[in-house]
Amino acid sequence: MSATGKFKIKLQIMCGEEIAMGPGKADLLEAIAAEGSISAAARALGMSYRRAWMLVDVMNRCWREVLVETGGGGRGAVVTGHGEMVLAHYRSLQAAAAGLREGQDWQALEQALRERPQR
Amino acid sequence: MSATGKFKIKLQIMCGEEIAMGPGKADLLEAIAAEGSISAAARALGMSYRRAWMLVDVMNRCWREVLVETGGGGRGAVVTGHGEMVLAHYRSLQAAAAGLREGQDWQALEQALRERPQR
Repeated sequence: MSATGKFKIKLQIMCGEEIAMGPGKADLLEAIAAEGSISAAARALGMSYRRAWMLVDVMNRCWREVLVETGGGGRGAVVTGHGEMVLAHYRSLQAAAAGLREGQDWQALEQALRERPQR
Repeated sequence: MSATGKFKIKLQIMCGEEIAMGPGKADLLEAIAAEGSISAAARALGMSYRRAWMLVDVMNRCWREVLVETGGGGRGAVVTGHGEMVLAHYRSLQAAAAGLREGQDWQALEQALRERPQR
């Protein structure tokens, strides 16, 4: 397994009890931008349409402006400028967090870790 | 809510499919060091004895040396030197990760975030 797979870093931005942004929502935003609709994005991620729609609804209620604009009636969906801004800062935080893998702490832990759990 | 509560950073060290170290296991290790037994540590954390024992078992199988030595028969438990080393490096990674809260990305996200989700 790669060092990346061994050391997981999960960043969640909370709004009250809701997760306003996290790894799954960031991937969904990117897929919507690429595919042009929530249903196509859900298919691309192997996610149900219902779940994708729910995640979009949470995101749109947690930020000061909506991140995704939906035309309704199957007319597709667009990631707004606000959505692009939020996504860019979230990805930047993730990249900075990934830098922890370069430090001595992770190096020491990796050496102390077994490849597989002992039975 | 504090900035800390709004921005959650979860670090998990994996060994195969098992979580060798994470927030809950680190807290349990500290409680065992403070309380001197798995049962007292479980009580202090409001966790069942069964769950605490299971977490200790996973930790002990994931690292090259055991992190917790148990006397058996209720004779208490001790965090080993290896356990203290792993805990120290994990806490150090957490502290470094918390530094992400000082950067411009988080500042921009916090300004774009609502206090509460819109209904």
